[in-house]
Amino acid sequence: MKISIGQYLLNRLKDYGIEHIFGVPGDYNLGFLDLIEDDEDLEWIGNCNELNASYAADGYARIRPMGALVSTFGVGELSAINGIAGAYAENVPVVKIVGMPSRNISLNKRLVHHTLGDGEFLKFYRMYEEVTVAQTILNKQNAKEEIDRVLRECHLQKKPVYIGIPVDVPGLQIEASKSVDYHPQSDKKILDAFIAGVKKELLGSKAQIVLADYEVNRYGLNSALHEFIQKTNLPIASLSMGKGVFKESHPNFVGIYNGILSDEAVTSAIKQADCSILIGVKLTDSLTAGFNYISKDPPTIEIHPFHSRIGDKIYSDILMQDVLKKLSALKFHPHRSTHTSLPKQKPHPSDTLTQERFFGLIEKHLEPNDVLIAEQGTSFFGSVDVRLPEGVTFVCQPLWGSIGYTFGAVLGTCLANKDRRNILLIGDGSLQLTAQELSTMLRENINPIIIVINNDGYTVERCIHGPNRKYNDINMWHYTKLIDTFDVTLKREALIFRASCVKELEEAFESARVHAKQLALIEVVMDRDDAPALLKKLGGLFSAQNSY
Amino acid sequence: MKISIGQYLLNRLKDYGIEHIFGVPGDYNLGFLDLIEDDEDLEWIGNCNELNASYAADGYARIRPMGALVSTFGVGELSAINGIAGAYAENVPVVKIVGMPSRNISLNKRLVHHTLGDGEFLKFYRMYEEVTVAQTILNKQNAKEEIDRVLRECHLQKKPVYIGIPVDVPGLQIEASKSVDYHPQSDKKILDAFIAGVKKELLGSKAQIVLADYEVNRYGLNSALHEFIQKTNLPIASLSMGKGVFKESHPNFVGIYNGILSDEAVTSAIKQADCSILIGVKLTDSLTAGFNYISKDPPTIEIHPFHSRIGDKIYSDILMQDVLKKLSALKFHPHRSTHTSLPKQKPHPSDTLTQERFFGLIEKHLEPNDVLIAEQGTSFFGSVDVRLPEGVTFVCQPLWGSIGYTFGAVLGTCLANKDRRNILLIGDGSLQLTAQELSTMLRENINPIIIVINNDGYTVERCIHGPNRKYNDINMWHYTKLIDTFDVTLKREALIFRASCVKELEEAFESARVHAKQLALIEVVMDRDDAPALLKKLGGLFSAQNSY
Repeated sequence: MKISIGQYLLNRLKDYGIEHIFGVPGDYNLGFLDLIEDDEDLEWIGNCNELNASYAADGYARIRPMGALVSTFGVGELSAINGIAGAYAENVPVVKIVGMPSRNISLNKRLVHHTLGDGEFLKFYRMYEEVTVAQTILNKQNAKEEIDRVLRECHLQKKPVYIGIPVDVPGLQIEASKSVDYHPQSDKKILDAFIAGVKKELLGSKAQIVLADYEVNRYGLNSALHEFIQKTNLPIASLSMGKGVFKESHPNFVGIYNGILSDEAVTSAIKQADCSILIGVKLTDSLTAGFNYISKDPPTIEIHPFHSRIGDKIYSDILMQDVLKKLSALKFHPHRSTHTSLPKQKPHPSDTLTQERFFGLIEKHLEPNDVLIAEQGTSFFGSVDVRLPEGVTFVCQPLWGSIGYTFGAVLGTCLANKDRRNILLIGDGSLQLTAQELSTMLRENINPIIIVINNDGYTVERCIHGPNRKYNDINMWHYTKLIDTFDVTLKREALIFRASCVKELEEAFESARVHAKQLALIEVVMDRDDAPALLKKLGGLFSAQNSY
Repeated sequence: MKISIGQYLLNRLKDYGIEHIFGVPGDYNLGFLDLIEDDEDLEWIGNCNELNASYAADGYARIRPMGALVSTFGVGELSAINGIAGAYAENVPVVKIVGMPSRNISLNKRLVHHTLGDGEFLKFYRMYEEVTVAQTILNKQNAKEEIDRVLRECHLQKKPVYIGIPVDVPGLQIEASKSVDYHPQSDKKILDAFIAGVKKELLGSKAQIVLADYEVNRYGLNSALHEFIQKTNLPIASLSMGKGVFKESHPNFVGIYNGILSDEAVTSAIKQADCSILIGVKLTDSLTAGFNYISKDPPTIEIHPFHSRIGDKIYSDILMQDVLKKLSALKFHPHRSTHTSLPKQKPHPSDTLTQERFFGLIEKHLEPNDVLIAEQGTSFFGSVDVRLPEGVTFVCQPLWGSIGYTFGAVLGTCLANKDRRNILLIGDGSLQLTAQELSTMLRENINPIIIVINNDGYTVERCIHGPNRKYNDINMWHYTKLIDTFDVTLKREALIFRASCVKELEEAFESARVHAKQLALIEVVMDRDDAPALLKKLGGLFSAQNSY
């Protein structure tokens, strides 16, 4: 079948579940954008800038199997590179497509705009090599194989990839037979050996704990994990990066692991355990109270998407999905301690909104299958202790931690599934980095509930260093006026609230629930120096981490 | 003298004329920010995001000898890298300072936040190697020498540099003797040979033309160039990237060179000339009508900051300043043709604002010593034909061409010299990329005249491809409401206008002139498909450049 290279790429993106492509138009990508605009199954989502586009594609790919964005050469791709690095750090499959100068221009090393004026056309490609798992520049000879290869790596490794398309290439016709999907398989012998090893560890132990994290989410193995816990009756805690990986209302769920800052139930379960199974876990500083572990022993067993480990021994080429399936069949029935959480105090309607009361209300108003997006800062650290109803997806970025991320990401999570309710929690300092993307949300007619925490500056920084320093202050905005400013022609009805006490926030939630088809922006006013308990403690530990 | 490493760096930045440092606070740079905040001779300018900070530092360094910004590791530095690449492309001396994790963290390869979670701490440094001329990571042993070396390269080469400071380093005390400045010198023999060669070319030619461009501006050699033209009486044209490099009211000034799109005076001068002298010129596509030269002959003589050329022969290690001085002493008096520009038609007050009338009014209202900042797009291409009064600095980015650049840059140009009037021309599409930086302008109490050209989308793209494509549309904002939205606490009096006819723009200019201490935002409404004549023609040529 004859097909243009640009269309072939679009078709393959659709195979991976993509229906929306983000980005900014620019010389060198306009011809390719024609193909997107003309494709009935695709929607072009023009963002206000490329960084926001990369965040949106990342958010999209946390709900869908993959996300994609298009920028122009040099200027556009470098503006997006922070977002791609975030996807690399946190294992999110994002396809970065770059419209490049024509081959006539680049092979002649001509000094064209959007270059450094030095005749070098591979500098930005090399920069992307540092933060993507596969890269290619398309031409007529390699297009089909390279598109297939690079997208396969994106899908398998759940990491971003880079596809450069010279401006003269999208329209070239190629012969493209149907692509054969690749399905990875476990090595049976190694799998059996690993399972036998795990069995031995379990049977030789007195108490066990399972810790589960984000890799399970990325590979969509939540049901397999659930099955494993159901069958074995093991107690399970999750890490905050993968919060929601396991049903938080399940009787076997102990809580969130936070190193020495974990609550009593988790601390006690970890202390008792002489065997721990880490499933899809990466022990980063934000998740471990700055590497301050409860127990000093290294984890006994680790399970990752393509390899696992018992003590120092690595078992390669075995898939997490097969491991979980086999482990579910183990005959192993430990005693489990039931977890009871303390009843939270009910606030009075006229109480001012403290961080504690605020997150209590978030917990109260969350509904099954919501998407909860929490910006790195007070929003994330406060959300960690919120018990999630069933089916809630929690979106956060605690490893990369790029402030402003969620305001772009929420555009992606909303478009990825328009039937789910999206609730975004973001602080004022973070919002200011990417605020203009509200314009795109209004144009695309999506309806998240956006909660802007107005606490007068970079509170997460104040917790680490310089609580009264001027550099942690920001200029105060009229956050409730953003909607009117960013939307002239569409005149969308949106809900706007400002809440500084419990009652006001309750009313805002209720109104948003009733008018669920409308975007809601709720400015929540809280004290500058108030912060979630976890963040306050972690700030001190991070400060110590910086000083030695 | 004992001094902390952080303070030594700050002192050296001050030596190079820096009084303001831009950036965003973040874990890993807070201790260094303490030093800035406590330094009486420095002001910390907290930006809304790092890309805007990099643009501001670039704008600052186009007025001052150098600019600087501070970000945190990973997230912050990658958000800024597009702006640094722009400074690299366009020869702007910007110092990028990055607060890094402590050496204890990086040498132990710990999985901390703001990393890719792979124990790699040099990936971003490597990315910066592609767009900076010198890089370093400071420690107690190398700090003095490395700071001196890297800043010297920044100053000499007028290109950005990278300084990484691990979070445990700024406070370390070092012994630092006074730094000895380095002054480059010409090789006298080569200089004499070059001058002799130029003399021979001049004497052997019948008609000559001088073309001057941005490198003269960067090295501040405008007086030397002026002297050269005064003494030799040669006709001179400038290129648009360096517009303003030579007094446009001078009788020897012919006009702006734009390849085959040059006006008649320039075209005729180029056609007549059998000897051309290019001073500080880089022939990029945006400046040459897409490499469509008037004459097919290669340039005879080229003069650059550290080397020059006659035909194919390179003369290294000779300085532009010395070359200009020696050439001024040449006894050479050519006949010169006087240039007379056509009188422009005077518009009627009720005339709607076309692009042509708009730039006529800009020319009328420009005053000596203004700073005119023109965004790449209709603003830049329309400004090219505006005759600049004496002493006007023209700020643009036609090589790198990152849209949104000027809205960050104007913050820098204003702070760099508070006594000059700054006029910014920016289109609506570009403004949306970096709009939040208005918040910082209001906080810093600067008073540019900001002219937002509201013509409903990416007109510069429409001129190249897809004039009626949806991807070239943007969401319409209430631009005049931006000031109120972004400024709650300061309640600054700002001037806000909306102009769609000649009279309204005239009144806005007059009001801004009277209230010169106030920031003015003028929304100018123009037709979607109108564009400066130069851009319309260039769009077609760029489109052709993309298709072969």
